[in-house]
Amino acid sequence: MFETTQFFMAKKIQDPGLGYSSNQNVQSFIKPDGSSNILHLNRVRSFADLYTYLLELTWTAFLLLVTIGFILLNSFFALIYLWIGIEALSFAPGSFLENFLNAFNFSAQTITTVGYGAISPTGMISGLVSSMEALVGLMSFSFITGLLYGRFSKPKPSIRFSESFVVRSFEGERALMFRLANKRTTIMIEPEIRVTLTITELDKNKEFKRSFYQLKLERDKITYLPTMWTIVHKIDKDSPLYKYSNDELKNLNGFLYILFQYHEDAYSQKVYKMHSYQFEAVKTNTKFTSSVRFSESGQIILDHNLLNQTEPSN
Amino acid sequence: MFETTQFFMAKKIQDPGLGYSSNQNVQSFIKPDGSSNILHLNRVRSFADLYTYLLELTWTAFLLLVTIGFILLNSFFALIYLWIGIEALSFAPGSFLENFLNAFNFSAQTITTVGYGAISPTGMISGLVSSMEALVGLMSFSFITGLLYGRFSKPKPSIRFSESFVVRSFEGERALMFRLANKRTTIMIEPEIRVTLTITELDKNKEFKRSFYQLKLERDKITYLPTMWTIVHKIDKDSPLYKYSNDELKNLNGFLYILFQYHEDAYSQKVYKMHSYQFEAVKTNTKFTSSVRFSESGQIILDHNLLNQTEPSN
Amino acid sequence: MFETTQFFMAKKIQDPGLGYSSNQNVQSFIKPDGSSNILHLNRVRSFADLYTYLLELTWTAFLLLVTIGFILLNSFFALIYLWIGIEALSFAPGSFLENFLNAFNFSAQTITTVGYGAISPTGMISGLVSSMEALVGLMSFSFITGLLYGRFSKPKPSIRFSESFVVRSFEGERALMFRLANKRTTIMIEPEIRVTLTITELDKNKEFKRSFYQLKLERDKITYLPTMWTIVHKIDKDSPLYKYSNDELKNLNGFLYILFQYHEDAYSQKVYKMHSYQFEAVKTNTKFTSSVRFSESGQIILDHNLLNQTEPSN
Amino acid sequence: MFETTQFFMAKKIQDPGLGYSSNQNVQSFIKPDGSSNILHLNRVRSFADLYTYLLELTWTAFLLLVTIGFILLNSFFALIYLWIGIEALSFAPGSFLENFLNAFNFSAQTITTVGYGAISPTGMISGLVSSMEALVGLMSFSFITGLLYGRFSKPKPSIRFSESFVVRSFEGERALMFRLANKRTTIMIEPEIRVTLTITELDKNKEFKRSFYQLKLERDKITYLPTMWTIVHKIDKDSPLYKYSNDELKNLNGFLYILFQYHEDAYSQKVYKMHSYQFEAVKTNTKFTSSVRFSESGQIILDHNLLNQTEPSN
Repeated sequence: MFETTQFFMAKKIQDPGLGYSSNQNVQSFIKPDGSSNILHLNRVRSFADLYTYLLELTWTAFLLLVTIGFILLNSFFALIYLWIGIEALSFAPGSFLENFLNAFNFSAQTITTVGYGAISPTGMISGLVSSMEALVGLMSFSFITGLLYGRFSKPKPSIRFSESFVVRSFEGERALMFRLANKRTTIMIEPEIRVTLTITELDKNKEFKRSFYQLKLERDKITYLPTMWTIVHKIDKDSPLYKYSNDELKNLNGFLYILFQYHEDAYSQKVYKMHSYQFEAVKTNTKFTSSVRFSESGQIILDHNLLNQTEPSN
Repeated sequence: MFETTQFFMAKKIQDPGLGYSSNQNVQSFIKPDGSSNILHLNRVRSFADLYTYLLELTWTAFLLLVTIGFILLNSFFALIYLWIGIEALSFAPGSFLENFLNAFNFSAQTITTVGYGAISPTGMISGLVSSMEALVGLMSFSFITGLLYGRFSKPKPSIRFSESFVVRSFEGERALMFRLANKRTTIMIEPEIRVTLTITELDKNKEFKRSFYQLKLERDKITYLPTMWTIVHKIDKDSPLYKYSNDELKNLNGFLYILFQYHEDAYSQKVYKMHSYQFEAVKTNTKFTSSVRFSESGQIILDHNLLNQTEPSN
Repeated sequence: MFETTQFFMAKKIQDPGLGYSSNQNVQSFIKPDGSSNILHLNRVRSFADLYTYLLELTWTAFLLLVTIGFILLNSFFALIYLWIGIEALSFAPGSFLENFLNAFNFSAQTITTVGYGAISPTGMISGLVSSMEALVGLMSFSFITGLLYGRFSKPKPSIRFSESFVVRSFEGERALMFRLANKRTTIMIEPEIRVTLTITELDKNKEFKRSFYQLKLERDKITYLPTMWTIVHKIDKDSPLYKYSNDELKNLNGFLYILFQYHEDAYSQKVYKMHSYQFEAVKTNTKFTSSVRFSESGQIILDHNLLNQTEPSN
Repeated sequence: MFETTQFFMAKKIQDPGLGYSSNQNVQSFIKPDGSSNILHLNRVRSFADLYTYLLELTWTAFLLLVTIGFILLNSFFALIYLWIGIEALSFAPGSFLENFLNAFNFSAQTITTVGYGAISPTGMISGLVSSMEALVGLMSFSFITGLLYGRFSKPKPSIRFSESFVVRSFEGERALMFRLANKRTTIMIEPEIRVTLTITELDKNKEFKRSFYQLKLERDKITYLPTMWTIVHKIDKDSPLYKYSNDELKNLNGFLYILFQYHEDAYSQKVYKMHSYQFEAVKTNTKFTSSVRFSESGQIILDHNLLNQTEPSN
């Protein structure tokens, strides 16, 4: 029935109805960087996808795209001016290449609205074409202005998760822990975390059966996060991980799906960050090195290099 | 009393006070695309409506409007320059059409701030008018820049609802189900759904009497939605649909009103989407084809074509 | 003690500690249009206030301000060019007025970046000044672009409240009612309302004593608001208004403070709207005319003129 | 274990597990202005940090940076034009300085897209370079437009906290109080406050031990804040401050961390403001002067100078 609901977690999800079967093992639906790992078939693209795409491009690719677009657009208009006839522009005719370059420069001067006037339209038609080109130029740069602002103002969550999570003995039991650090110098406000565990196991019918659990955390919401936060799930009798030994955990066919949210002061907005861990990444009998340092004057130090530093633990 | 509250649903709405009577049958207040289906009389338009209108236009209409506005504005200024006298612009006088086109081109070069200078104002008055025109031009393009950004950055919910909903036997009872798919490649965060049922029936006085119910769903909030979600309302004894046979359901004079919300990662914002179903759209003894597919490497596949695919069900 | 907390309401506020005394009667702290009615003394203005101010200006005032600023800035630069010496610009010298106007036009052509070139800087200094002026121009228009977008994109709640509220007999008791209409053609999502009552009465010591109550409403949150909503407070035994006769209500020294919030689809945002009613505005033995209309095809009609229409009620 | 969780507060935090030890006293992690007081080591900067940095700059620094960037960019392009050869630009050659200044002015006319044309590119290469420069210019001003809008539209909380907090006798016990004022003329909607107390004390092992408490407030959420709000924590038997005398409080090694949030109407957004008080700032046997004033017509007056005014109290 629930072909898809299996990927999302309600608060209490020991409900076996949530698990489902397949004849195949399944990848995480979240990539390590928090983006989606779904293969889309027959998806209809919309214009809004273009905006989203241009927003997600790297800066290098974005600037390259703008430059290439600029050159192509000018070449296109240069050819139009040549087609109208170079006598419609006020420059001395030469070879085709010279004419093209002059037309290209005129086009560039028009589309950027520089308009030196050393080359200018002398005919009516070239005048009208160059008027429209200036309009195209202004619209394009309006568009780019919006894109640049969109790129900058898009809130970027500033979370780094520890590369691996650990399982160690803790307060007489075992605990699963991972760590996250604030990448910015601002203080995270009201951070909140939710951890979902999925385990895939072969049942008697040799089918892969998936179960989902929301892990109970020692603390899932705090007021401020200026530095690092260690997330702790106690593997007590109520934990779905209780029945597995440390060695079994390493070979567990499962994932941790993490949803982290907080108010990001730099963008004055609530932001979300997803993350996933494979159980292969677990380190047992290991603990994170204490990350608390103080300067001589008593100022708290956040050493970002300590995030992944671990040490043996019994 | 409650002439209007009948359209909105509190959590528990078997309250008969919510129903109301009329001598006429009534359309859905939400169009199939989620927009409003209300006829407004004597509405006072405000300037803000203009912005909203320009934001909702299709891109074709928007670009056409800009181009037409550009031509009209230039024609207007061209006529002003002709009225001032063409000797105020530095071009050789000709026929009226030639003069108009030259003035038009000068205006376009001014309003776009290209300003080649081949034609330039020679008099004081034409100088002042062209200065103001350049101001008008810059303001217009500032305005268009804002509009373009507004159009792009307006969050667009990316939900597709299945064309019809089904009623099928399920766990010993019947269940009403419909399906929705994530149109984007991002993962929807914390989606939440609310379904309101309205039924209109003729009472003894031959008046149409409407009743409203909030349907109880198997699950109305999940953490992630990477692919599709099947919404399930069990038609058990507590359901307002319990008393209707499958055949009666098909002829039921009623609507399902759906409010769906989630955090859209592409726009870093919470978005809402409304939808409505008519009971004419119900398919009985039908179930949705399972939408879960996996690639050979175990990656989850979302085939958007499967959304509306159904198969017989007993 | 609570010199100020008296203006805000917690859920239950029959707490007499909230009332306070003064030797004077007090105005509403919210103007009828929902803006603040507080007199500020010794307030330190910040740069951010300027932005807020420019955002709140009417369009007429805003465009006037831009035009005046444009003229002043150009006059300022014109004077600089005259001071540098008109021989630094390529135009034939004339009277002071002619020179000033030429310099003004050159300045306008520079600040708008039109730059025809008919007048151009011939000296090094005028060249540098005009370069800086072009920078000033571009920065100014960047600023105006931002302002225009800010003005447009600022979410404007689209609520109209009925001019008066009514008290009428209702279900064997009296009820206080007012009505609000959706000014836009979109559907309001999840509207929510809170009504605070404040009553000022002279106590034995001839001091004005204010009491605050949060009024219990029949319904304070709904899912959709496509048309109008009648807010109902039953004046039952638990109501702070129970002890007043209809005639006493008319003379009551008090206000209703209303906070309305909903998700505005046009701006994809949650918006708030404040409103206040004086008890002088109450109409007794009056009810609102039913606002529900249907077109022949069964489409729901919202007639905005009906908002304030009332009729006698016993 | 909880190297970092010690800085954030859950609702109930008498939990001794939250305290932690160090051989050093520690500064507040929030500066008096509400910004972070954390020393970051080995932090990897990202491009998004640049945007945040440019947003946080003072206006003077920002405008200076733009001007310097403008001059440097023009100097850079001027040198390129000189390197191409001044014969590629249409001006009479002179000394190096003259040539440089002419090239600089040409560059400025290009980058701002003024393009008078008095100086214009005469060769193909200078034509292409100036075309690219115009593109660079337009991109830069698009970027600055976005930055200017980003700077303006970034919501700025408008809260002033009283410089010190007081402890005074109140209703038979002592109470800790501080005051905050609305710096804007708008009304704050749904303000909410949370106060966390941290105390550091030397334990028997001469280690600094920190404890964290969330202080219970008389009122932590109100509907409107048009003027000032006095925050009151009663030092009753349940208060962690109960065991300290007034003199001990003055010497207490501790901080109050304050998180304030409200809906800011000027930016149509929820905003957050952090603040911290040192116990050195406490004033005992002191109370705030009443801030309520009324004009003759009964309008409420907010005198911003009264925020820090105190008077003796027994």
